[in-house]
Amino acid sequence: MRIIVDAMGGDFAPREVVKGAIKALMEFNCEIILVGREEIIKKEMGDFKGKFEIVNADEIITNDESPVKAIRSKKDSSIVKGLTILKEEKGDAFVSAGNTGALMAGGLFILGRLSGIERPAIAVLIPTEKKPVLLLDVGANSDVKPKNLVEFAVMGSEFYKVAMKEKDPKVGILNIGTEEEKGNIVVKSAYALLKEVNNLNFRGNVEARDFFKGDFDVVVCDGFTGNIFLKTIEGFGKFLFDKMKLEIKKSFTYSVGGLLLKPALKRIKDSLDYSEYGGAILLGLDKVLVKCHGSSDSKAIFNGIRAALNFVENDITSKMKEALSGLKEVKD
Amino acid sequence: MRIIVDAMGGDFAPREVVKGAIKALMEFNCEIILVGREEIIKKEMGDFKGKFEIVNADEIITNDESPVKAIRSKKDSSIVKGLTILKEEKGDAFVSAGNTGALMAGGLFILGRLSGIERPAIAVLIPTEKKPVLLLDVGANSDVKPKNLVEFAVMGSEFYKVAMKEKDPKVGILNIGTEEEKGNIVVKSAYALLKEVNNLNFRGNVEARDFFKGDFDVVVCDGFTGNIFLKTIEGFGKFLFDKMKLEIKKSFTYSVGGLLLKPALKRIKDSLDYSEYGGAILLGLDKVLVKCHGSSDSKAIFNGIRAALNFVENDITSKMKEALSGLKEVKD
Repeated sequence: MRIIVDAMGGDFAPREVVKGAIKALMEFNCEIILVGREEIIKKEMGDFKGKFEIVNADEIITNDESPVKAIRSKKDSSIVKGLTILKEEKGDAFVSAGNTGALMAGGLFILGRLSGIERPAIAVLIPTEKKPVLLLDVGANSDVKPKNLVEFAVMGSEFYKVAMKEKDPKVGILNIGTEEEKGNIVVKSAYALLKEVNNLNFRGNVEARDFFKGDFDVVVCDGFTGNIFLKTIEGFGKFLFDKMKLEIKKSFTYSVGGLLLKPALKRIKDSLDYSEYGGAILLGLDKVLVKCHGSSDSKAIFNGIRAALNFVENDITSKMKEALSGLKEVKD
Repeated sequence: MRIIVDAMGGDFAPREVVKGAIKALMEFNCEIILVGREEIIKKEMGDFKGKFEIVNADEIITNDESPVKAIRSKKDSSIVKGLTILKEEKGDAFVSAGNTGALMAGGLFILGRLSGIERPAIAVLIPTEKKPVLLLDVGANSDVKPKNLVEFAVMGSEFYKVAMKEKDPKVGILNIGTEEEKGNIVVKSAYALLKEVNNLNFRGNVEARDFFKGDFDVVVCDGFTGNIFLKTIEGFGKFLFDKMKLEIKKSFTYSVGGLLLKPALKRIKDSLDYSEYGGAILLGLDKVLVKCHGSSDSKAIFNGIRAALNFVENDITSKMKEALSGLKEVKD
């Protein structure tokens, strides 16, 4: 298998990307194509020069650029080039820690949508009491129709089967109550549609409060709600840990307590890091595309490559197409 | 001033409610009318029998009842009776820890909306790094129009002035990015409307991640998003503290560390308890109505009464009416 890696994407590119790619090359039976500024990439390679194919791309799309504009104007960027050679089947998957919006926009322009999908989605695996739960959409679609949530549910379920080796993932809607009549117009209609989908283990609504119990495997929502959910976790987690640090400084006893607990607290913090699980996934494009967190270190890139290999090996794209072909036509 | 208190509302009613009311009676210069089953209330009063007026109400609306149905069928409930005597101006405000939906539905039927308000909202004060931030709506309106968010902003701002003694509260929209063009259709239109409102310190979008920095005073959103935000904090907070407990049990060193830190951790937990700030507030009804958390103890009830007194003293209802009267007509 051949994995295309965006060497210029992410806050610590190209160094951490190349390090992650080297690790993956040593561990897995695969080829890696690095896309980006050749001379800079080569400097980071050390003894591994010649072990990678490099496709030169002089431009970089940064995180503060408008996605659509960047994709249109920067034809020689690592994202556009990477997606283009993926489309040309020079590789089996594309891994990038770059601008998520640009990856989604570029994926739509260059790769196209999976047949049966109107709106691709961004998914993340979120740690819970029992297991990581897949949440989607977390930002690609601020406004959705009920049938889009059905597409998310089917894609998410197929993804979960392959990524988490779960036979029959439990699917739910993120909502403000568990009863069928709860929520806004979109989730209420989506509930009615999801009940009728064959081969989908739909289990109803899940409240944000109960999400962390991990009783569901896949939870769907519009991209606005999902993004709020995700960023709330991030912000609140940071707020809590900062508060703890402040408290610990307040007395000698506390600081001793804090010192003793330090490794445990660090372990908790690390376990909340969702880059651990291979990065966010763009679902609904006609190829495998793995998005790593913008602040990815080499470990996160390595995990992204590992995830990409798993998806290609299990032919996740075909599986999704098949599951989606079984959906009934729904009018908007 | 006379505060009407729902003696039957909340998980620990009537005992904790009566205890809270007694505390308030001792501390503040006010009268309190307790509404509920007279004989039970009297049993909880101890030496304070005769110090309160009691209005008998035989029925109780529980938390799992459908709000609208309950309000219609239980005319002799503490909520319906309490709201009715508030409407009749036998008291200046109503404090209840009962069914939020029923309070909102009853408030709409019996008290009516504040002039200038299409959709009343539920607001809560959420602790952040700098100060408590008012978030609304957190559940009354799952679907909103842009102009409703404007109403929330104006009501929230007036509320914050009185409740938090802040002269010119900074108002923001809860969103998935800070730029004006970010978000779903509703928040984008609301942004354009809010920019034009006079006498409102509108400062743009605030990301969920940055909410806890406390740079804004009032943050508006639809009730679906707000409820997800609130329940995410609740669920994630519990998840983190449970994880910590598990880690602490893992070794002797950790358990010593945990023991030393226990008071600090408890203080953090307590500081996150939003009942501390006087309970949730129903804004947009034509009287002062304070909703306490369902699990309110006597302290929370006491705080709710204190908040109600402050709102009446400052004539918050008139202030909101005035601010709302300045809004331009917006077509739906």
